Amino acid sequence: MNIAVDAMGGDNAPKVVVQGAIKASDELGINIILVGDSEVISFELEGKEKRGLVSIYHCREAVLMDESPLKAIRNKKDSSIKVAFDLLKNGKADAVVSAGNSGAIMAAAILTLGKVEGVERPALACVIPGSAGEVILIDVGGNVDCRPAHLLQFGIMANAFATSCLGMKRPRVGILNIGEEAGKGNEQGRMAYELLKNSPLNFVGNVEGGEIFSGLAQIVVCDGFIGNVVLKLSEGLAASVSSRLEKSIRNYMTGKVLALLSHKFFKGFQKTLDYAEYGGAPILGIKGVGIICHGSSSAMAIKNAIKMAVDYVENDVERRLSEQIAGFHP
Amino acid sequence: MNIAVDAMGGDNAPKVVVQGAIKASDELGINIILVGDSEVISFELEGKEKRGLVSIYHCREAVLMDESPLKAIRNKKDSSIKVAFDLLKNGKADAVVSAGNSGAIMAAAILTLGKVEGVERPALACVIPGSAGEVILIDVGGNVDCRPAHLLQFGIMANAFATSCLGMKRPRVGILNIGEEAGKGNEQGRMAYELLKNSPLNFVGNVEGGEIFSGLAQIVVCDGFIGNVVLKLSEGLAASVSSRLEKSIRNYMTGKVLALLSHKFFKGFQKTLDYAEYGGAPILGIKGVGIICHGSSSAMAIKNAIKMAVDYVENDVERRLSEQIAGFHP
Repeated sequence: MNIAVDAMGGDNAPKVVVQGAIKASDELGINIILVGDSEVISFELEGKEKRGLVSIYHCREAVLMDESPLKAIRNKKDSSIKVAFDLLKNGKADAVVSAGNSGAIMAAAILTLGKVEGVERPALACVIPGSAGEVILIDVGGNVDCRPAHLLQFGIMANAFATSCLGMKRPRVGILNIGEEAGKGNEQGRMAYELLKNSPLNFVGNVEGGEIFSGLAQIVVCDGFIGNVVLKLSEGLAASVSSRLEKSIRNYMTGKVLALLSHKFFKGFQKTLDYAEYGGAPILGIKGVGIICHGSSSAMAIKNAIKMAVDYVENDVERRLSEQIAGFHP
Repeated sequence: MNIAVDAMGGDNAPKVVVQGAIKASDELGINIILVGDSEVISFELEGKEKRGLVSIYHCREAVLMDESPLKAIRNKKDSSIKVAFDLLKNGKADAVVSAGNSGAIMAAAILTLGKVEGVERPALACVIPGSAGEVILIDVGGNVDCRPAHLLQFGIMANAFATSCLGMKRPRVGILNIGEEAGKGNEQGRMAYELLKNSPLNFVGNVEGGEIFSGLAQIVVCDGFIGNVVLKLSEGLAASVSSRLEKSIRNYMTGKVLALLSHKFFKGFQKTLDYAEYGGAPILGIKGVGIICHGSSSAMAIKNAIKMAVDYVENDVERRLSEQIAGFHP
């Protein structure tokens, strides 16, 4: 299997991306194509062992993290993100992994590969470690002003992914809302509730903000606007709660005990909450496989995302997703 | 000053409500009218000292936490929430404080007292302890499907409250969005951005999910749907992060040290994060003063909310809010 990895994408690229790619290649025995400036990538590869399965595909440009996604993809034809998806399109790669500008990755994926038949809006699904197992939040990819039918499709696509890739049997699907009962919330939510209730999905109803990670639902469907806010808020809060608790423990405890609880422990703990460390987020509904990593991904997170790309390909998620979408809209 | 307190509202009513009311009366030297079933309230007051300033106003009914707000207020004319606002309307109370069904409190406030002239939608403002001082999130009161003009008014009303009641000079006002730049986000957000930018408010632009509590903005404006999700998610996460960290510290440390870090410590820490403990949330834009407390409020939280009601009255927030709304829509 060949995975195209955007070597120029992410806050710590290319260093940690290359490290993560080598790890993945070692552990999984797969071919990695590092896409980007060959000079800087070669420098990072220098002296690393087992380079056999890792190759470089040179391109001149890179999309910056704060660039306008659509403009960047249209103007920078030789950027690492665009070239990686071109490799996939041309059959030279089986999947793309990138920690770059997520809007640009979404745009490149959709423009280069196209959408699965019947899918109106591809969506980004984030797998989050909840308090009772994994929870998929969909969409976190910036699909704003969604129609209720889009939310239904998000549920179907996440269901296909969860059953084929995450080993969930018949995942509980909920819709993010501001009350427990049907009829609560905004118009979008009320209409999507009806569509989901009448679908073959294992629909469990409304999920309130405090219940997103509780396990009440394993798939939580929402508009990409609110999904993005939820994700960023969760990250921010996990870091801030953990650091405030550290401070308050340090004020509370004596000198000797303090030595036992290193700052590293707290940083480590924060990482366990951080979905970025957990792996990548798959773009569901495109013709092909694209995994987006957080910009601040560590080498471990990059490796985990590559592993997810491999699972996605091996479990034929695209075909299953396509069948489920077709089945629901005969 | 006379504050009408809904003695029947909240998960731990009437016990903690009565306790909080007595505390407030003691500390602030104000009259409290406990509204509700006189028999149960008398039982709670039994044996408490300094009852002089605390009186009971009897009514037969109470709105349940999960009752439909509008129906409850229309049908239960003798419920403690409705009666408390009637007392305010008739000049027998200067403000209402309730930890009951928040939808019903909003409905009773608006139906009984009416809206400040020019205000389209009264909104609930929650004051949250952020990492760099207080942050006001508005609306958290369930105004869904807001138009951009509503969001502008939320900003103006919160500005009036913050400057007159919280001692903020010229608070930084931001709008919750999914990108830093103007032009990002959904249609509602983009249009509200322009309105806020062209207002006399100290507008600082978009605030992303991870920055809500950072201090970037002191007032964060959003649709009531997302405001509710943000609030409940924050509460849930603070509790879950803190309890997971406690578990992981207990696994990490030795027996002796464990004794130093009691479970109580963690519960105490959680409380410092909990906006419920912090006080109440004022309903901005009604003709009168209504403060909503979290259903799980402690006696301390009830007392803090009563203190906020007193500040609101003494600082003449309603008049200032009314002037600012009128000034913006001449």
